[in-house]
Amino acid sequence: MPRFKLTIEYDGTPFVGWQRQDNGLSVQEAIETAVAALSGEISQIRGAGRTDAGVHALGQIAHVDLTREWRGDVLRDGLNAHLRPHPIAILGVEVVAPAFDARFSATCRHYLYRIINRRAPLTVEGGRAWLVPRKLDAAAMRKAAAMLIGRHDFSTFRASECQAENPVRTLDRLDVVRAGDLIEVRASARSFLHSQVRSMVGSLEYVGAGKWSVDDLLAALDACDRRRCGRVAPPEGLYLAGVDYERSGACFPA
Amino acid sequence: MPRFKLTIEYDGTPFVGWQRQDNGLSVQEAIETAVAALSGEISQIRGAGRTDAGVHALGQIAHVDLTREWRGDVLRDGLNAHLRPHPIAILGVEVVAPAFDARFSATCRHYLYRIINRRAPLTVEGGRAWLVPRKLDAAAMRKAAAMLIGRHDFSTFRASECQAENPVRTLDRLDVVRAGDLIEVRASARSFLHSQVRSMVGSLEYVGAGKWSVDDLLAALDACDRRRCGRVAPPEGLYLAGVDYERSGACFPA
Repeated sequence: MPRFKLTIEYDGTPFVGWQRQDNGLSVQEAIETAVAALSGEISQIRGAGRTDAGVHALGQIAHVDLTREWRGDVLRDGLNAHLRPHPIAILGVEVVAPAFDARFSATCRHYLYRIINRRAPLTVEGGRAWLVPRKLDAAAMRKAAAMLIGRHDFSTFRASECQAENPVRTLDRLDVVRAGDLIEVRASARSFLHSQVRSMVGSLEYVGAGKWSVDDLLAALDACDRRRCGRVAPPEGLYLAGVDYERSGACFPA
Repeated sequence: MPRFKLTIEYDGTPFVGWQRQDNGLSVQEAIETAVAALSGEISQIRGAGRTDAGVHALGQIAHVDLTREWRGDVLRDGLNAHLRPHPIAILGVEVVAPAFDARFSATCRHYLYRIINRRAPLTVEGGRAWLVPRKLDAAAMRKAAAMLIGRHDFSTFRASECQAENPVRTLDRLDVVRAGDLIEVRASARSFLHSQVRSMVGSLEYVGAGKWSVDDLLAALDACDRRRCGRVAPPEGLYLAGVDYERSGACFPA
């Protein structure tokens, strides 16, 4: 029974998130429905990152087992045809070893968070970025972000519903780059806690606005207390940008 | 009576185009309605570029005359409040001399055309780019584009409904740059004929796909015949990126 690795892009706006839920359509369910319509097989797919409602993906990875030996491009085009009109695209399909697991074999996950820092409302970027009207100091945000890199207890930056047993994670990258009104935050780690990126970005926004100093951010981290989180940035600015595999455990920020 | 220069961004998807028309809401009408609601004055605005239905703008310029001496930021924020929920944003407002005319004082217009060259449908870029599934050779497109730069009779690349008396234009820039699946075409000129950018991009797509050689493109240009145009690229990939003023007539590509 061949196993297929799917590279997936989606606009998270209309979905309840990646994972199947009772309260609406998830990306997972939409793809599983397309798999069933195309192949006649009921198959569960497993994704590398369980993105929340409204969060987008440029390079989500999932795996699925099918009885037939599909050619990658045929499976990709067939799934895309059946996914219409949902804003989900299968960018690529590869046959992988049966031991490959999209979630557990992942060695690094890359997220992108897009802030547009201006007074005017969003138009072409509506639903694609977080509009922050107050002026942000991206250099201060970058300096503060560097303090979060490394191995820490990230309890302050995890959602209360986070199910991970251990709040310690190793953050390999947290960059802040400004280009005009756009501020991009790039985060890479082997794994993240629930809402960790949005919690870190929301707290960095406090630093950028001058509401928090770098020391305030460090104190919040050290407190290991969810109530000390600055704010949680909204989902529409977040993109699961890519997932790495098979590099003997190390995380190589893109 | 002070004259104000407005810098405007919009998502062209829901509009019949920039200019007022009987068959639906235009960007011009939406802004004029906001001006009236805010100021109580009925004022016509004039734009630098009359973008077609579905075409976007990142830096459209318009001017409007009002009796009151508005502070720029107050006028900007007030118009944006009244423009909701339309995807139109006033990015900036400046007071200009009475001789300033958004359309006739413009010395250079810059357009951006975005192609996404891949098999998979668009998701986050839906309505923001032209999806071209067949493989395009961007280097061939760039070579061909360079042949169109300069002063030419662009009759082949103008819409049949174009109202310009003279089909001769000077094209200052026509660049083609590829980054992954994205192909960006940047065009700059003092002025363009109706549908000129989309007609040139559609013909360049023929070159990229190998359907036309560079010589075929040149022959089409030399024919000065609309029926020789390759195809017209769809509006959703086109952005009016910016407009220059007050540089003594020369066009400086951005």
